[in-house]
Amino acid sequence: MAFDPLILTTSLAVAGVVAAIFLVLSVQKYPKGNEKMIGIWTAIREGSNAYLKRQFRTIAIIAIIISLVILVAFGATINFTYGGEIALSFLLGVAFSLFAAYVALYSATNANVRSTAAAEKSTYEALKVATLGGGALGLVVISMSLLGLSLLYAAFRDPGVLAGFGFGASLAALFAQLGGGIFTKSADVGADLVGKVEENFPEDDPRNPAAIADNVGDNVGDEAGRGADLFESLTAENLGGMIIGLIVSIIIFNGVINPYYVTMPLIVRSLGIIATFVGLAVAVLEKKFKNPIKPTRDGLLVASAIAAILMFIATWYVFGPGGLSPSGSDLAAYALYGCMVSGLAAGLLIVIYTEFYTGSNAKTVMSGNAVGMISSGLPVITVAIALLISFGLGEQFANLIPALKGEMFLGGVYGTTMATMGMLSTAGIVLTMDGLGPIVDNAGGIAEMSGAPEIIRERIEPLDALGNTTKALTKGYAMGSAALASLLLFQAFVLEVARYKAGIIDLTSLASNPGLAATLATQLSGLGTFLALNRPDVVIGALIGGMLPFVFSGTAINAVAVGAYRMVEEVRRQLREIPGLREGTAKPDYARAVDISTRTALRLMVVPGIIPVVAPIVVGVFLGWTAVGALVVGATISAIPLAIMMMWGGAAMDNAKKYVEMGHFGGKNTETHAATVVGDTVGDPWKDTAGPSLHILVKLLNTISLVFIPLFLSAIIIFH
Amino acid sequence: MAFDPLILTTSLAVAGVVAAIFLVLSVQKYPKGNEKMIGIWTAIREGSNAYLKRQFRTIAIIAIIISLVILVAFGATINFTYGGEIALSFLLGVAFSLFAAYVALYSATNANVRSTAAAEKSTYEALKVATLGGGALGLVVISMSLLGLSLLYAAFRDPGVLAGFGFGASLAALFAQLGGGIFTKSADVGADLVGKVEENFPEDDPRNPAAIADNVGDNVGDEAGRGADLFESLTAENLGGMIIGLIVSIIIFNGVINPYYVTMPLIVRSLGIIATFVGLAVAVLEKKFKNPIKPTRDGLLVASAIAAILMFIATWYVFGPGGLSPSGSDLAAYALYGCMVSGLAAGLLIVIYTEFYTGSNAKTVMSGNAVGMISSGLPVITVAIALLISFGLGEQFANLIPALKGEMFLGGVYGTTMATMGMLSTAGIVLTMDGLGPIVDNAGGIAEMSGAPEIIRERIEPLDALGNTTKALTKGYAMGSAALASLLLFQAFVLEVARYKAGIIDLTSLASNPGLAATLATQLSGLGTFLALNRPDVVIGALIGGMLPFVFSGTAINAVAVGAYRMVEEVRRQLREIPGLREGTAKPDYARAVDISTRTALRLMVVPGIIPVVAPIVVGVFLGWTAVGALVVGATISAIPLAIMMMWGGAAMDNAKKYVEMGHFGGKNTETHAATVVGDTVGDPWKDTAGPSLHILVKLLNTISLVFIPLFLSAIIIFH
Repeated sequence: MAFDPLILTTSLAVAGVVAAIFLVLSVQKYPKGNEKMIGIWTAIREGSNAYLKRQFRTIAIIAIIISLVILVAFGATINFTYGGEIALSFLLGVAFSLFAAYVALYSATNANVRSTAAAEKSTYEALKVATLGGGALGLVVISMSLLGLSLLYAAFRDPGVLAGFGFGASLAALFAQLGGGIFTKSADVGADLVGKVEENFPEDDPRNPAAIADNVGDNVGDEAGRGADLFESLTAENLGGMIIGLIVSIIIFNGVINPYYVTMPLIVRSLGIIATFVGLAVAVLEKKFKNPIKPTRDGLLVASAIAAILMFIATWYVFGPGGLSPSGSDLAAYALYGCMVSGLAAGLLIVIYTEFYTGSNAKTVMSGNAVGMISSGLPVITVAIALLISFGLGEQFANLIPALKGEMFLGGVYGTTMATMGMLSTAGIVLTMDGLGPIVDNAGGIAEMSGAPEIIRERIEPLDALGNTTKALTKGYAMGSAALASLLLFQAFVLEVARYKAGIIDLTSLASNPGLAATLATQLSGLGTFLALNRPDVVIGALIGGMLPFVFSGTAINAVAVGAYRMVEEVRRQLREIPGLREGTAKPDYARAVDISTRTALRLMVVPGIIPVVAPIVVGVFLGWTAVGALVVGATISAIPLAIMMMWGGAAMDNAKKYVEMGHFGGKNTETHAATVVGDTVGDPWKDTAGPSLHILVKLLNTISLVFIPLFLSAIIIFH
Repeated sequence: MAFDPLILTTSLAVAGVVAAIFLVLSVQKYPKGNEKMIGIWTAIREGSNAYLKRQFRTIAIIAIIISLVILVAFGATINFTYGGEIALSFLLGVAFSLFAAYVALYSATNANVRSTAAAEKSTYEALKVATLGGGALGLVVISMSLLGLSLLYAAFRDPGVLAGFGFGASLAALFAQLGGGIFTKSADVGADLVGKVEENFPEDDPRNPAAIADNVGDNVGDEAGRGADLFESLTAENLGGMIIGLIVSIIIFNGVINPYYVTMPLIVRSLGIIATFVGLAVAVLEKKFKNPIKPTRDGLLVASAIAAILMFIATWYVFGPGGLSPSGSDLAAYALYGCMVSGLAAGLLIVIYTEFYTGSNAKTVMSGNAVGMISSGLPVITVAIALLISFGLGEQFANLIPALKGEMFLGGVYGTTMATMGMLSTAGIVLTMDGLGPIVDNAGGIAEMSGAPEIIRERIEPLDALGNTTKALTKGYAMGSAALASLLLFQAFVLEVARYKAGIIDLTSLASNPGLAATLATQLSGLGTFLALNRPDVVIGALIGGMLPFVFSGTAINAVAVGAYRMVEEVRRQLREIPGLREGTAKPDYARAVDISTRTALRLMVVPGIIPVVAPIVVGVFLGWTAVGALVVGATISAIPLAIMMMWGGAAMDNAKKYVEMGHFGGKNTETHAATVVGDTVGDPWKDTAGPSLHILVKLLNTISLVFIPLFLSAIIIFH
């Protein structure tokens, strides 16, 4: 009994959006606290909104230019209609991504002050408000991604066109994360270097002119940036899975497109929305806990269990004996389900490693750096094992479905697709944990700056530490899923190359030309030799790809260094020129500090943001699609350990600073403290600017390679 | 008119060794200076020798275990005779490498004090002694490598057996560079942290208990370590070139091995010895200079020109019309010569970039890190362009030699071989520059600690700065050549896999079985599909390979952190317990500090050293040769930018510290100075421990993959 799976996915996406609105409204019922809190909150909210507005304008200009490039590139190589579809899809991707960023920011600035006020009652109430705020972020991001893909697929019925949507999402996310990351870290480092080291102010001291900018930064970097970031992650991953499902289906069913193969990634994602509902309920309802991480962690575990059960049912219903897809079998369903579980387990393992490594107290920059580098080992091995298992099970799946017999490779690739979907089935609840972080961080900042009663500050302090942990956890998870997703998108890229080479631009041509499916299969089997690691174009592409994450990170870190320097100058100037500021009798000019960070971030995000757009296009035009493919894989290979080094090494350095500030090794105002503050100046841009941008970089390269295939098929230099 | 090229290469190798002995003797004619200088020099020399002896013992034990593993692995898969040959070749590689390290150390400790004493006459005399000492190192390293390969090839006539020699050289070099690097940086950082920051001693103050250990470290890390390091670089690169020459020759001449194709790399290397003679003469004879880098830089330029001329003559003589190799043509000779020039030019360009990037004054850890990351761009692009040009010209070479027609790929690979040889033709003079660095560094230390007259110290100071520059230049050059060499060795690996698969273990079987050459060609053309980037084993191998340089660097940096911590404790203890030490009336216990560094280095070098030995073997046994090949390429891709980030970023941080110490930004005893000292604690192990070990790591992975091919041909898990 067949039904259109898009009905399921679209309605669950809508349900997710509605639930998110409901969460925002339920947060709004909470009081905002006293006048002083509201004053500070208003400054933070206005600063954040003002930044976001200017950032959106910059991104919009870049997006419009790129959409014209797409139109021209496709007009010259394929035709303008197809180019127009992809350009439209691209612009929608940018718009959806920025909308997700906006909602994330709105929800966060909605919840932060209310979390502070709720701490008057209890730590539980403060955490509950923050969790609801984070939950709204999580739900809106996964639902919007699902909605966008479902609607576009319903309109065009071609995942190839959806590549534009993925490209748009990645591009917007890269700029949002970069701009936000540069903003937040120039403010943070600037505030710390003058405030903590020179003036001996505590964190979030209202006398520090950069204090508001620092809190604005948490919002625009961690909330809006991460919202766009995870929106693009989910979108890119689904997109890759759909393309693979399409080609597998064309080859198995000899030109007939089976909707279940294509939309299985969307189905799994929509089940994730249900799992998120349950996980959120668990996290919000758990009232008694010693460690404030327990409720959300329990929520994650329950959501994982629910997702595991729902995925089993869905797999059985689609691929089992008598299922919706023809020629299913019980063993085939078990094999695919095994793939999903391997991905789910790998995701949970990476979350556990992150907690382990970032918890360690690196005493020096040197050991923080060492911890960061060493910690890349386990996640990479875990991803490798998940790939191994899911590819092997996917081969078994191919073996068990008569039509797929012999197509072991395609089966394996479909298996890794299912592993990626399994890992991402818990994305909603992980996003909640991520969104919760900056809310409690801000709640603490508002409490401190408004001079809230001691009891409120005491209750919020453990939540602040929780926020740092959850932020680190979700970054690790994002990188792990990006590794799988990038390899998936690379497979999708190879399949799309075969499709273009077979001349299947319009999928409806398959019905009228029964030989096309066979042509596609032939093209596909011939592509392997062109991707051999000993070919010069592949080697050159991979070398350049491997270098890109370093140059990108270097320019991003440099932007923070420039921004922090300007902030230091400004804070010093205000302390010098505003009489009574140091004594607390005069108010600093917060807005000017916010404005400086804004201008720095928007100007300096352009260079690192443009590099990953231009590099693959130049390489592809000269050396062809093989070099671009190798570039993407090379970038993935070096970006994963580099990102982990920066994210976890940076977190370890940050923790070292906090540890000393708590009174260990002599506490504040010692040389050890100064050394950890210096360490944190490199740790901060590592963990909050360059590190979390790297996986967007990788997927941006992936989606660009997918979109511009027609351009790469005729290269200037061709090797034999 | 044919003659055996091994006669040329062996005799030039012997000439190089004789010239090196002559240089050592000519240095020994110089006086050693006053009693006090000799006293300090004796302490440095004895500490260095004692360390080296203990290090050699540790490496010998590890080498003997590995040689047994080789014997057993080959006995089980091929036969014990072949295994015995490779094990013998391996042990010789270890022995030659350690001998090169010993001579390098001997020459350096021979020259350092005499350079100090010669400064009494003039800066020129001091530089001359150092240049002669560095020249001895350079000559002995290139000559010993050439000698070992020439003799082994004369004995076995099979480059495959020589892979053992390369593996031995890489293994010994990795441990020598790691152990030396950990020693020198724990001593250096420990000496700085207490001496400079806490006690406000100047550099090389005789009251600092770690002062001798710091100078010993320069010798064992920079001289012995780098000597073994470059020995293995040259050896591995020649080895790869010879294997490629062998297979190209077998396929072109249908089973007949043309000795010129195989030994062309050795011929180019021996021409490099002549170029080094001339370059050294220029460097030593130039008496008038403003900047002390000028004489050696002129030496490098002249040596490059001489090498370019000699390579043209040799190429013409071998591959030109009527040349020694059959079916040569003038255009074919031009094409190959173009490859060599592209490599030579790329090497010089990388030297220029290094000077540019390390010269920049990064003011903070953050910007030092950013500079390091960004600076990986140009070298990678340069290497990529050299590959592109030489592969393209190599294809033309294949096109022009009738027998090679159609074998465009092999021609391209042979072209990149020639590019690598071209880049390395100037290795002798670059090694001289490298050897010169620690000699003048030590000369400065001896002058400072012995309280030499002001005029001596003034004359040596600019040489000290020169030493830092030349050390950085040669590290950049080493990494550039390693990138080319690693890709060369990977091609050699693929060719050797084809050879094993074709069953050509004994090369003499080619004569009796005329069909074998065709079988080899067939095997070779079939291998590409197994190396496709979209295969799971390739992806998994590449992911793990890309992560290895990070985990390796992390463990190495961690070892320095542990060692530095111990040194800090010891220096503090001596300052506390030895009365009169701070005032200069009592002498510190230098020997104990040396002993602590020695023990730390030898114990902590084992873990990072074992990782790259075990990882490829485990991956290969499970996932087969394709995964090992991908692992090696993955490691190369991420190691190049990571090494450049660490070497150049580290140098930028070091320069920042020196810049502040010269009085800028408030000078010493300011917070800025303290921050740069903290920055240097991470910069130091970056640039002197982990960074320069990475290219050895890459080539160790290369040579292991080459040696253990028989083990990898039957994997546990096989993908379709």
